[in-house]
Amino acid sequence: MPPVITLLTDYGLEDGFVAACHGVIIGLAPEARIIDVCHLIPSGDVRRGAAVLAQTVPYLPPGVHMAMVDPGAGGARRAVAVMAGDRMFIGPDNGLLSWAVDACGGAAAAYEIVNDDLFRHPVSPTFPGRDVFAPVAAHLCLGRKPADLGPDVPPDRLVSLPKPTSKLRDGAVEGEVLSVDRYGNTQLSITADDLAALEVQVGDTLAVWLGRRQLTVPFRESFASVPPGELVAFADSAGLIAIAVNAGDAAQRLGLPPGAHVRLSPTS
Amino acid sequence: MPPVITLLTDYGLEDGFVAACHGVIIGLAPEARIIDVCHLIPSGDVRRGAAVLAQTVPYLPPGVHMAMVDPGAGGARRAVAVMAGDRMFIGPDNGLLSWAVDACGGAAAAYEIVNDDLFRHPVSPTFPGRDVFAPVAAHLCLGRKPADLGPDVPPDRLVSLPKPTSKLRDGAVEGEVLSVDRYGNTQLSITADDLAALEVQVGDTLAVWLGRRQLTVPFRESFASVPPGELVAFADSAGLIAIAVNAGDAAQRLGLPPGAHVRLSPTS
Amino acid sequence: MPPVITLLTDYGLEDGFVAACHGVIIGLAPEARIIDVCHLIPSGDVRRGAAVLAQTVPYLPPGVHMAMVDPGAGGARRAVAVMAGDRMFIGPDNGLLSWAVDACGGAAAAYEIVNDDLFRHPVSPTFPGRDVFAPVAAHLCLGRKPADLGPDVPPDRLVSLPKPTSKLRDGAVEGEVLSVDRYGNTQLSITADDLAALEVQVGDTLAVWLGRRQLTVPFRESFASVPPGELVAFADSAGLIAIAVNAGDAAQRLGLPPGAHVRLSPTS
Repeated sequence: MPPVITLLTDYGLEDGFVAACHGVIIGLAPEARIIDVCHLIPSGDVRRGAAVLAQTVPYLPPGVHMAMVDPGAGGARRAVAVMAGDRMFIGPDNGLLSWAVDACGGAAAAYEIVNDDLFRHPVSPTFPGRDVFAPVAAHLCLGRKPADLGPDVPPDRLVSLPKPTSKLRDGAVEGEVLSVDRYGNTQLSITADDLAALEVQVGDTLAVWLGRRQLTVPFRESFASVPPGELVAFADSAGLIAIAVNAGDAAQRLGLPPGAHVRLSPTS
Repeated sequence: MPPVITLLTDYGLEDGFVAACHGVIIGLAPEARIIDVCHLIPSGDVRRGAAVLAQTVPYLPPGVHMAMVDPGAGGARRAVAVMAGDRMFIGPDNGLLSWAVDACGGAAAAYEIVNDDLFRHPVSPTFPGRDVFAPVAAHLCLGRKPADLGPDVPPDRLVSLPKPTSKLRDGAVEGEVLSVDRYGNTQLSITADDLAALEVQVGDTLAVWLGRRQLTVPFRESFASVPPGELVAFADSAGLIAIAVNAGDAAQRLGLPPGAHVRLSPTS
Repeated sequence: MPPVITLLTDYGLEDGFVAACHGVIIGLAPEARIIDVCHLIPSGDVRRGAAVLAQTVPYLPPGVHMAMVDPGAGGARRAVAVMAGDRMFIGPDNGLLSWAVDACGGAAAAYEIVNDDLFRHPVSPTFPGRDVFAPVAAHLCLGRKPADLGPDVPPDRLVSLPKPTSKLRDGAVEGEVLSVDRYGNTQLSITADDLAALEVQVGDTLAVWLGRRQLTVPFRESFASVPPGELVAFADSAGLIAIAVNAGDAAQRLGLPPGAHVRLSPTS
């Protein structure tokens, strides 16, 4: 298999920024296969970048996974490479990589990226994706040892984002809106396993509390299990509970931004 | 030539959904060459997906053409593989593939996709693109026989979208707005051949009826044949008649949504 | 290294237009590696296309660089191939290529593209990207000589866009807003070298005149060198001075469209 490099950024698609990264990689490692994970992470939204990376990485071939969402680009945060399972993640040490690293079994080793023999010069302070991470990704693909990047970082010193959690309590489960997709489906931090622990089964009905509001929502196999325009809860393709409107926009209808508190329980 | 897989979906580019499909394909068939046809089909718009696929496929190398626009994902519609010419189409049996299949000479054979040895497990009910179609595309690329996917489907039992048609009558041709592109050019279901049958030539003037409104529009070689801001009709890159405004948005100016009835005739 | 073809267009991503170009290229030159530079150039905005191409091309591997932004598609402008350094640019002769050609050392030779043996037939008057430039790019990749495309064009007869310039005068530098990126950072036609000529150093403060308004803006290493919400000037990843708001949108806050006049001087 040709070596795989994947890219996730908040660069958008309106400029040549993504292409510059592709160009630098291909110039150094012509055989590399590049997969664009997503470049429309909202600008500086580390949490959204972390969620998309963690939920996509199980489906990507092992390789070098570069991610760059960094409101502090040019600031003081360090650049790191993190080994997890058969994968290497490179990006800023701001938590962006942390959920994906966890999804791959946790960090086995980590290195600060400081060896500027591997960078593209001159290094622009505002475009480390092009001048630091892209060439480092290519060199790793070509067989360079991670330990050549710079000094060891103890994995427990890496910055981690607080994990979105769910809590089972009093016959209910509490969590939050983790993200909202293009369709307006709201993905919760509550898992299919949480509902199983409450003995909720497909076909049951859920009581959903959003702040003071309470709704009754059917729990079904998919959004398509209810008529168009109706609310539904289901286990989504990442194993998390989503609240959706079939052929509609649940986030908009319910006014549910990321971070909003949600509580679910079986109706009695 | 390396095996080619093409993808058309309504997944959008804001999530990792497209990348998950790429990852699954490359993990199984590392030599596959993937072409992204379009991922911004409006959510659930089967007709728009069918039009883009049918108009693009003549320019794609033969291969496995996966398409996924399915307001009923997780519902009851079956998944099918359809052989047409030297191409294989896979997708939901909801008409999405039908215009492209017709453009390739019609269905020579079809199979229901049920052999779950070829799927990625666990299969998410809400993401068949990743768990069913992407791995099936990869296996077909690797030489798996279509008949291994599942039972034969008689081609005349496949779901077809009604074909956008045009009708010559009383020295005029009637049709509808088939789609609107990024520039606001409105593509009609009326063909260049229809106008030829009415003996309309480039340089002539057309009477255009939109409901009760009537306009007089020059028929020219391209939108650029008239000054900026002026209306023009021309044969577009798919051989269909388009009404456009040079450097402007005809769909917006004329209030012409897909499906709107249009009648053209030569001015006398 | 496999042959590289890069594409920059204003086709957008909502249709199959980009895929049709990929398909035509891969059908002829299966080994070609395609890099999408950008397809979201605003429709017909030759100047923006020229800027993105010129700023990205230094980071792309040498190859055939196709660009298509042409408000006069189907009009009278000729199609050209321009050799510069170890690169070949193909596109309309409307200035789109000119800044990139300059960035690569200027045109060593140029040819009008008229040899229709190399085109895809029938040639649509409205889609030369698919029927003229894509097949020509593939043939060049396969080793076809540029002189086979058509007659020589003296490089000084090629259409050039006026270069965005800066002028040092009275201890200040004047220029204009060259472009605005996704983040709202406004890139000026004023270079880092201009500020160096005025002996401005990182850490200094700039007086910024926008028409009659005058602002005082710190000159720093990057947008991240100031607190969120504050204005900052810095040398961007293309070596040009940008005015930004950390975690904000400077173009919107200051009302600075492309072309707006800007004057900078060190504060005394």
